[in-house]
Amino acid sequence: MEKKIEIEKKVLSENDRLAAIIREKMLESRVVAINLVSSPGSGKTSLLEKTLAAMNSDLRMVLIAGDVQTENDADRLRQAGGKIVRPIITGGACHLDAKMVSRALDKIDLNGADIVFIENVGNLVCPSSFDLGEDMKVVMISTTEGDDKPLKYPAMFRRSSTFIINKIDLLGFSNFDIDKAEENALTINGNLKTFRLSCLKGEGLDLWYQWIRHLVMEKKAIK
Amino acid sequence: MEKKIEIEKKVLSENDRLAAIIREKMLESRVVAINLVSSPGSGKTSLLEKTLAAMNSDLRMVLIAGDVQTENDADRLRQAGGKIVRPIITGGACHLDAKMVSRALDKIDLNGADIVFIENVGNLVCPSSFDLGEDMKVVMISTTEGDDKPLKYPAMFRRSSTFIINKIDLLGFSNFDIDKAEENALTINGNLKTFRLSCLKGEGLDLWYQWIRHLVMEKKAIK
Repeated sequence: MEKKIEIEKKVLSENDRLAAIIREKMLESRVVAINLVSSPGSGKTSLLEKTLAAMNSDLRMVLIAGDVQTENDADRLRQAGGKIVRPIITGGACHLDAKMVSRALDKIDLNGADIVFIENVGNLVCPSSFDLGEDMKVVMISTTEGDDKPLKYPAMFRRSSTFIINKIDLLGFSNFDIDKAEENALTINGNLKTFRLSCLKGEGLDLWYQWIRHLVMEKKAIK
Repeated sequence: MEKKIEIEKKVLSENDRLAAIIREKMLESRVVAINLVSSPGSGKTSLLEKTLAAMNSDLRMVLIAGDVQTENDADRLRQAGGKIVRPIITGGACHLDAKMVSRALDKIDLNGADIVFIENVGNLVCPSSFDLGEDMKVVMISTTEGDDKPLKYPAMFRRSSTFIINKIDLLGFSNFDIDKAEENALTINGNLKTFRLSCLKGEGLDLWYQWIRHLVMEKKAIK
């Protein structure tokens, strides 16, 4: 087992090396990079569809859609108007790594872009260990998943900067306590910025769009 | 990377060796073993709570609750009347393996039991690779997760025998097409037995209980 741990360490340090290169490129081009993580079905693709519909005309977005199998998400993003969409099929792997993202970014001119959204594989565990060169991880849960999820999957919440609670239109149909969910998340990571929204009904999305614009402006302003 | 793959193979074959020992013990004691897998928040613990409430008086259940962090699930199962509840905290690992289960089963007299439910870590990817000595994997999704999940996480559906669609009380509040979800699952694995139910409202649970009783009887009848 020691040998296994040693090799895992090597894999992670090689990943960190590649992630640092990606981060440097993003900085040079003043492009925001967001690594969007959640369980399967929390609404990562839906959020990106909405974001495209609302901001595609004024923001130049690159969308990288990771999946174990199928290009379903990439197809949805193209249909929603995504101009630069790169699918990554991991073929079984439970997370994206920096090498996959680095390849997906090849031949994209980042100087023409404002923001890169990396939609990770649906998995609340493994993607927490892999730096993809992002500015931040944004973790999402939905109101149908249980308000104790931050406590049960703490690593992901510890390593994220932002916490989205989606499907607030379904509040009241389950035992989910939204304040409790937020409290639990803040217990793990007191610095989390939080959004409450419904991709289906549109509630709360304006604040999300406003924040995305703010991130882009802030990055462009770096001297 | 070759070295990594080689060591992964070794880890898996050691896992298979331990899983075979667990399977043999379960057979000797004529105990059914179910490995319950899903994303976080699909309702694994809720299903076990309901199953305890309905069948605790006539079935002797052992409950193994795997989580990355916290004993929340184990606590819920104890509160629901679980008599033999063993939490496994993986401390970061994204799946249960046979060694963890084997340790959890230590000191439990399986001859006094009818069924062992192993509630895996909430993760639709990694637990598919680990045999825990179970009779079958039961994979669950909920109606709020999207009907394409079987296509996107095919390994889990290929390696499961039974497919539960939970939260049917929320049908109509999202774009989830339940027939499509079942069709998608059957495309991956034509032999899947399917249940449609709502742990919250109770719909469909009687068929589940009946099937559990049937499994127990069938196992006891092995000569």
